This record gives sequence, C-alpha cells and structure tokens, in this order.
Amino acid sequence: MKIPVAECTVGIAGLGLMGGALAMALGKLKEKAAGPRILAHDKDRTVLRTAREQGIIDEAFEDPAAMLGRSDIVFLCLNPSALIRFTKTHMAAFKSGAVITDMAGIKESVAALAEGFREDCDFIPGHPMAGAEKGGFANAALVHFPGKNYILTPLARNRPENIAFLKDLIRRLGFGRITCTTAADHDGKIAFTSQLCHVIAAALVDCETDAGITRYGGGSFEDLTRIAMLNAPMWTELFLENAGPLLARIGAFEQSLREFKTLIAEGRAADLEKRLLAVRERRSRMG
Amino acid sequence: MKIPVAECTVGIAGLGLMGGALAMALGKLKEKAAGPRILAHDKDRTVLRTAREQGIIDEAFEDPAAMLGRSDIVFLCLNPSALIRFTKTHMAAFKSGAVITDMAGIKESVAALAEGFREDCDFIPGHPMAGAEKGGFANAALVHFPGKNYILTPLARNRPENIAFLKDLIRRLGFGRITCTTAADHDGKIAFTSQLCHVIAAALVDCETDAGITRYGGGSFEDLTRIAMLNAPMWTELFLENAGPLLARIGAFEQSLREFKTLIAEGRAADLEKRLLAVRERRSRMG
Repeated sequence: MKIPVAECTVGIAGLGLMGGALAMALGKLKEKAAGPRILAHDKDRTVLRTAREQGIIDEAFEDPAAMLGRSDIVFLCLNPSALIRFTKTHMAAFKSGAVITDMAGIKESVAALAEGFREDCDFIPGHPMAGAEKGGFANAALVHFPGKNYILTPLARNRPENIAFLKDLIRRLGFGRITCTTAADHDGKIAFTSQLCHVIAAALVDCETDAGITRYGGGSFEDLTRIAMLNAPMWTELFLENAGPLLARIGAFEQSLREFKTLIAEGRAADLEKRLLAVRERRSRMG
Repeated sequence: MKIPVAECTVGIAGLGLMGGALAMALGKLKEKAAGPRILAHDKDRTVLRTAREQGIIDEAFEDPAAMLGRSDIVFLCLNPSALIRFTKTHMAAFKSGAVITDMAGIKESVAALAEGFREDCDFIPGHPMAGAEKGGFANAALVHFPGKNYILTPLARNRPENIAFLKDLIRRLGFGRITCTTAADHDGKIAFTSQLCHVIAAALVDCETDAGITRYGGGSFEDLTRIAMLNAPMWTELFLENAGPLLARIGAFEQSLREFKTLIAEGRAADLEKRLLAVRERRSRMG
C-alpha cells in the first residue's frame, strides 16, 4: 500500500466494542493532523446513526458492499463465525489492492480464510490485546489502546510493505509491543493468557452461590472475577474454536492445582513455601 | 474502654506491611485533630528506628513488655504462628483493662487464644481486608484502608463497649463495611474470597514456564496473577492453618472447572453459552 495513512480510507465492518474503539482511536489521529476517512458498516442501524451523529465515523453504510468497494484498508471487527461468514459472502466486493485485517481472538481459522482470499487483496490476520468487561458500541470508550500488546499472524503471501503499513497504523493508534508470530503459536499462547483465565474466572463464580460473599472480599476475588462479566456468545465461540489448545491448558492448570492441594492436604509446610516462593520469582521474571 | 480514641495509647506489635500501614493511618488522624499516642515494637531495630525518625510512630520499643504495659489498645500485626507465640510469651505484660485485637487472616486459632486470655483484658479478634503484593514496613504506604472491608469475630466474653470502641476506631481509620461474624464463618468465607484465589493465582503461574508469555497478555493473566507475588511464609501458614475449609473450596472449584471442561470438550455451545451467561448474572448480583 503506497497511500499514506492520512490519505487512506478505512472501512470498519462491525461497530461493536472493538470496532467502535477503533473508530474513536482513528478519530483522535484526525484531531492532531490530517487523518484517514472512516467508513463503517453494522447490521444495527441505530448504532450506525449514533456513530455518524456523534462524528465518530465519517460515513455509515447499511450496505457492506458499498463500503468495502471504497476502503483501502478494512478492519473486520466481528465475532469469529460472523467474520468468516461476512468475508465469504462479500469477497467480491473488496476494493482491489485493499489491505484487510481482523480483530478475532483466534487465528487458525482466520488464517485459513486469509490464505484463500482474493489474490489482488492482502489479508493480514491480527489480534489487539485490549477489551472491556462490557460489550457493544455503547461501551467502546471503555477500551484503551495505549501501551497494549498487538499480535499479528502474517501469512507467507502477505506483502512486506503492507505488513509495514499495518504496523505503522497500529503504532499510531497507540499500541505498545507488536508481536509477529504464527496462527498456531498465537492460539496456543492465547489459550493460556486469555481463554484459560476466562474459564477460571467463570468457574470461580460458578462454585459460589452466596451473592453476599463480597462482604468478605479484600480485592483478590474481585481481581480474579472481573473478567467473569464476559460476553457469553463471543467467549463460547472462542473456547470452542480453540478447544484443543484450551483443553491442554486447563489440564496443565488442573495438574498444578492438584499439586498445591496435595501439599496443603499433607501439611508439607517447607515444600509449600518453596513452591510459593518459586511462583513469586517466576511471576517477577514475567514482568 | 472509657478513654476517647484521641487520648488513648495504641501499641503495635509487629511493624511490617500491616502494622506500618496502621501506624500511618493513625498518624493521619493526628493531622486533623488530637490523635492517639502510637507505640510500636518490632524485632527489626532498623525498622523501629526508621519509623521513629520518619515520625510514623511516637515511641519505639525493643522490649515488647515495656510497650504492652503502657498500651490501652494493642494491635497484634504478626503472622499467625508468631502472633500466638508472642501473645503467650508476653501475656503477663499487657496493661490491665487493655483491648487487644489482631490482623491475622485466620480466626479459629486466634479465637482459641483470645478465649483463654487474661480476664482483666479484652481480646477481640479481627481481620482488615486490605493488603499489598509486596510485604514489609518499606511497602506499608502501598496499603490503603479507605472503603475496605473489615471483619470482626467477637467472642461472647468480649464487652459490648469495647467492641463499639474498636468499631469506632476502625471507621476512623477509613474502613468501609465492618462485618461481625463467627471465627468459623470467617474462615469458611475467607477460604474462598482470599485463600482459594491465592492458590489459583499460584497454580496459574506454576503451570507456565515461558517468562515471555506476557507479550501475549491483554490484562486477564495480569489481573489473575497480581496476587501470585505472595509472601510465601505467611501464605503457607494461612493455607495450612485453614486447610479444612480451603481444601473443600478447592474441591468445589475443581468440580466447576471440570464441568466447563466437559462442555468445551463435547462442543456443547448452547449449554456453555447458558452457563457463561449465568456466571455473568451471578457476578453482577455479587456487586
């Protein structure tokens, strides 16, 4: 892509939590200097109208094809299944030469989709490591990009100048570290840092029925279950799409938990203290 | 106790993270108006000297008996085993009529100690639900009391006016809800809100050896493992002292986790989504 970011047209498919946050971050670029033109499509007309009235987007499209035909870069901000359906349905409508990327929390199935995409376009799968407990466009302002991690899982077919263009745009949006890796590596790591954590948070709330338990809270339970306020349909998709790596991670966690349980049940103070100290040191090294 | 808070002498046994935070919070009372006189004992002379030089305490005592003999109210800010040892060793040194309380995270063993305490003193066990990831006096400023929960587990022998005096002092320190309950109820609830959460955080760090994993973090792993930076000797004591309730809580959590694992392994999307939605609703009700 040879068009400078400030002069390109960005199309956002899906103006939910992340699409909305993206539109707002792109809008901030324009406050400083010339910025990209922001187009958006969403199946919800009210969201489109609100976003247009609030000046968060420049143009609203009820017809996705009309938006795609004018977008130099497209961000697919949809749940995994909707993303795949949308892209296949509208494949012919994308502008020739367009760079396409997505924000889905799983990358193997998106990589397969990108691999088979039109040859005159360049689909670079990605995953911004940002979000919020509450979903939807109405909560988009709760999402903060500055300093957050961003994972890209480029394909061999992706053109280096397009990867460089996308990285530059991601940095302008405020993200911190950008890590390029394979889809399989992403899905294996994310199964741990994100999905396993969400399953644990859900299981922790699931095993306590007393709504008054927070009177006894000192911050730990609150920290561990903040993410239990999850978007159930989206996380169901993410868990099931990435079932293999996730089940392996749950199994490893169960094993560690069992070992701690044994140390406690057997009253092995010295071994328990040593293990807790090792955990503390490892967590420090993780930074 | 008929002495107003502003005119009483407070003795702090153990000037670590919590004892230090208590001294600082008591010191703030004095900034506004007349406040209590703050005495402290610690086995670490350097800590005592620093606290005295910084004006965090009024008087430092290397000899605990000398401090105890002058204290109208004593806060025992020691790990459970040290607390029990200290109290038994120095039982004769407490001032007649003194109110004594502690800050330990388990209450059954402290209740037994308090039950057998001198009849001319009044030992009311307590647990402030505040803390910090890092321990020791040097990190005491990281602990914030305002709005936090405080649990008291008074005994039948405690005098109502002394419980009222202690509650008043706790409120002045900035704490929010004060809950009075039994030691057994405290230990059962805390096994969930605090100890189980710490075991989970430790197991989560324990099952991942890659120190670079945080490149793939989006906040969930960070939220769940902040408390993994734990004080290993103290948490070993807490886990083992409260092993019964804690093991029961680990078992219930393992059961919920297994059920989520089954739903994922069997690809039961509708059931999984329903269960996640129920979790979200329950967490909302917990406030």
